[in-house]
Amino acid sequence: MKIIVQKYGGSSVATTDKIRTIANKVAKKVNAGYKLVVVLSAMGKTTDGLISLAEEITKSPDAREMDMLLSTGEQVTVALFAITLKEMGLSAISVNGPQAGIMTDSAHRKAKIVSIDEARLMRELEKHDVVVLTGFQGFNERGDITTLGRGGSDLSAVAAAAALKTEHCEIYTDVDGVFTTDPRIVPEAKHIPVISFDEMLELASSGSKVMQSRSIECGKKYNMPIWVKNTFSDDPNNGTLIKEEDSTMEQVTVRGIALDKKEAKITLKSVKDTPGTAAKVFGMLAEKNINVDMIVQNSSSNGNTDLSFTAPKEELASVMVTTKEIAKAINATEFDVNPAIAKVSIVGVGMKSHAGIAATMFESLAKAGINIDMISTSEIKISVIVHENDGEKAVKALHAAFELDK
Amino acid sequence: MKIIVQKYGGSSVATTDKIRTIANKVAKKVNAGYKLVVVLSAMGKTTDGLISLAEEITKSPDAREMDMLLSTGEQVTVALFAITLKEMGLSAISVNGPQAGIMTDSAHRKAKIVSIDEARLMRELEKHDVVVLTGFQGFNERGDITTLGRGGSDLSAVAAAAALKTEHCEIYTDVDGVFTTDPRIVPEAKHIPVISFDEMLELASSGSKVMQSRSIECGKKYNMPIWVKNTFSDDPNNGTLIKEEDSTMEQVTVRGIALDKKEAKITLKSVKDTPGTAAKVFGMLAEKNINVDMIVQNSSSNGNTDLSFTAPKEELASVMVTTKEIAKAINATEFDVNPAIAKVSIVGVGMKSHAGIAATMFESLAKAGINIDMISTSEIKISVIVHENDGEKAVKALHAAFELDK
Repeated sequence: MKIIVQKYGGSSVATTDKIRTIANKVAKKVNAGYKLVVVLSAMGKTTDGLISLAEEITKSPDAREMDMLLSTGEQVTVALFAITLKEMGLSAISVNGPQAGIMTDSAHRKAKIVSIDEARLMRELEKHDVVVLTGFQGFNERGDITTLGRGGSDLSAVAAAAALKTEHCEIYTDVDGVFTTDPRIVPEAKHIPVISFDEMLELASSGSKVMQSRSIECGKKYNMPIWVKNTFSDDPNNGTLIKEEDSTMEQVTVRGIALDKKEAKITLKSVKDTPGTAAKVFGMLAEKNINVDMIVQNSSSNGNTDLSFTAPKEELASVMVTTKEIAKAINATEFDVNPAIAKVSIVGVGMKSHAGIAATMFESLAKAGINIDMISTSEIKISVIVHENDGEKAVKALHAAFELDK
Repeated sequence: MKIIVQKYGGSSVATTDKIRTIANKVAKKVNAGYKLVVVLSAMGKTTDGLISLAEEITKSPDAREMDMLLSTGEQVTVALFAITLKEMGLSAISVNGPQAGIMTDSAHRKAKIVSIDEARLMRELEKHDVVVLTGFQGFNERGDITTLGRGGSDLSAVAAAAALKTEHCEIYTDVDGVFTTDPRIVPEAKHIPVISFDEMLELASSGSKVMQSRSIECGKKYNMPIWVKNTFSDDPNNGTLIKEEDSTMEQVTVRGIALDKKEAKITLKSVKDTPGTAAKVFGMLAEKNINVDMIVQNSSSNGNTDLSFTAPKEELASVMVTTKEIAKAINATEFDVNPAIAKVSIVGVGMKSHAGIAATMFESLAKAGINIDMISTSEIKISVIVHENDGEKAVKALHAAFELDK
C-alpha cells in the first residue's frame, strides 16, 4: 500500500469551492494508485470566530472547554471534505482526533502528542482510498478533547506520517516553500529546494513563519522528510524539502536569513557576579512561563555585570512585573526594557566547517552603518540584535554579502 | 444526590447573552442544592447553516459524514455553556455524545439510543455541579458519531433522565406547555396542566408540535415524567406535566384537539376484495419507506372496494410513483390523489369509559356544515379527514362542543 499524508491549511479549504479544488487534487493521487491521509485545518477564519464567541463570555475562558469548542472547526472541514470525495465517487471516511487515536497529554490548548493508534488509521486505509483526518486535535487519557496550539495541524500531519512510516509528508500552504529570506523584504530572495531539519529549526525559531518548530522537531525526531508546497501552484519545482542533513548541504555556508521583530530586550544592571544569580533570574522567569530567547552576560569588571535577555513583546506586561521582582531579589540596581529591537539571524549547516562567517556578517553590518547591540551564536546560527529600524536594512545587507541571490 | 435533567432548545441558546440567561437559571438550582444535567441543542439556526454548506456540495450528502458535520453544532453550545458556568464560579464540564457513552444503532441521521453509560454521567456529577450534555447525538459500535433526527435533543434528555433515574425530566421550549388545541386557531384554548403519555402520544402523531413522539415513547417506556415548560416564563404554574395515566384523568373525555394539514389522501379504486391485497399495497409502500398514517377500507358490495390511505404531502412525488406501480400490480382501475385535506383528531383517555363521544363529534361537525371524508379511531382518539379549508372551522366547532374552554 503506497500511502501519502497531505495537510491543507485553513485558507486552502475556506469555501466549499476550494474544498472541491483540493478534492480534485486528491482524486488524481488516488487514480495514480495511492492511498491518502488528508489532514485538514478549520475553514478560513472559523477558529477566530469561535474564539470571539468565547470572548463574548469571558476574556479567560476555561482551557478544557476551549478545546471542546475549537475542535469542532476541523470536524466541520473533514466532514465536508469526505462528503465531497464521496460525491466524486471515491471511497472516503472522516475521522476526528479521538477516533484516530491521537493521544496527547492534558495541556489544553497546547497539548503534546503522546502516541497515535496507527493500527486504527491502517484499518481505515485498507477499507477506503482516503482517510480525512482533523488536524490540530487529539484526546487525553480522561477522554477529554485537546488541541495542539499554533501550527498544530502541521504537527498532526507529520506525526501521522511518522506513525504510518510513509516516505514523506506533504504540507500545503499559501507560499511556494522556504526562501533565503522573506521576499517582501528582499525581492531577490531565492527559493530553497532542500534544507536540513536543523537549519529549518533555527530559521523557525528566528522568525521565519513558514512552519512552526514543533512540526520540524517531530520530522527530525522520526526522520520524516517534509515537503512544504504551495496548494495552488502547478509548477513541479514548487516547494521545499526539509530533510536530514547530508554532506552536500555543508557546501552552503548561509542557507537563509530571518528577521524577528516580536522580541523586546530587558537588561538588569549592576548584577552581582556570584554563582547562582543567573539560575535565580531565569528560574523566576520560567516559573511565570515566560519564553526567554537570547541571553547575554559579559564578563564582569568590578564584580558587577549587566545581564540582558530577550522575551516576546506580547508578554511584556508580565515580563516587566516579573523583572521588577527579580531585580529586588538579586539586589540589581535597576533594569531597562527596550522593545525597539530587531533580531537578525543567519543560518546554515555549512558554518560548522567554514571559518569567518561571523566576521563577514559583522563587517557587512558595519559597512551598512548598523550598530550591533547583542550577539548570540549556535553551531549553525549567528543572531544579532539591532535597532528596530535597522532590521530590514540588515537583512538586505547580509543577503547581498553572502550572495544568497546568486 | 438530587439530580435534575433539563433540556433547552436552539432558540433558548441562540446567543451568548441567552446562554448567560439560562446559565443564571441553572445556577439558582445549583444554589438550591441540586446537581444538574443540562442538555443543549445547537445555537439558533446553526444546524440549518451546516446543512446548507453540505448542500452546496451535493443534494444527497453521505449520512455518516452528515452526522460528523451536524454533531459539531451541539458541541459548540455545550462548550460555551460550560465556559459561562465556570466564569460564574460553578463547577461544570461539557460532554459530547461519545464522551457521555450514548450508544446508538447505526441508522445515521435518525439513530435510536441503545444505551447510556450512566456510570460515566454519575462520575462527572460527583465531581461537578453541572454536566452539560450535547443533545441530538451519540455514537455507534464502530465509534462513528450518530445523530438522532428531529426532536433528538428532547430524546437525549428523557433518556439521560431515565438512565439516572431522576424524579422527572424538564424540557424547556418557547411555548407555555400543552394546550387543548393550537391557541393560534382557538384563542380560548386552555392550558393543560397534566396529560398522560398516551394522550400526548396521540396528540403528537395527530399534528401537535410541542414534542416529538419518540421522546414521549421513551418517557412512557421508563415511566419518566416529563415537564414541558417555557424557558422565559416566571409563572410557577407554567408548563405541562406528561405522566403515567391515573384514575383522575379518565374524568376528562377529550383532553385536546389536533389539526394536521401535512397529509394527502390517496384512493385506489375498484380494488379486488381478495385476501392479500391490502398486504401487497402496504408492503410496497413500506418498501419505499413511505409513512402511511390512516388506512380506510369499506366493506365491498360487488367484490370490488375502494382503499384509501393518507401519507405525508412532502413525500407525494414518491407516493404517486409507487401508487402507480401498486395499481398495476393489483389491477386497480385507477387511483385518486387529494392533497387538499386536513386531519382533525380529538384525544382523551376518558373516551374509553364514556360513550357517545364519536356521536357528539360527528354531530357538531354536521352542525358546522363540515363534510367528513374519512374516519379512523383508536381507543383514545377519533380522527376525521375533512376538506383542507374546513380544518380550522372543525377544530373551533369541536373545541366548543366538548367545552374545552371551560
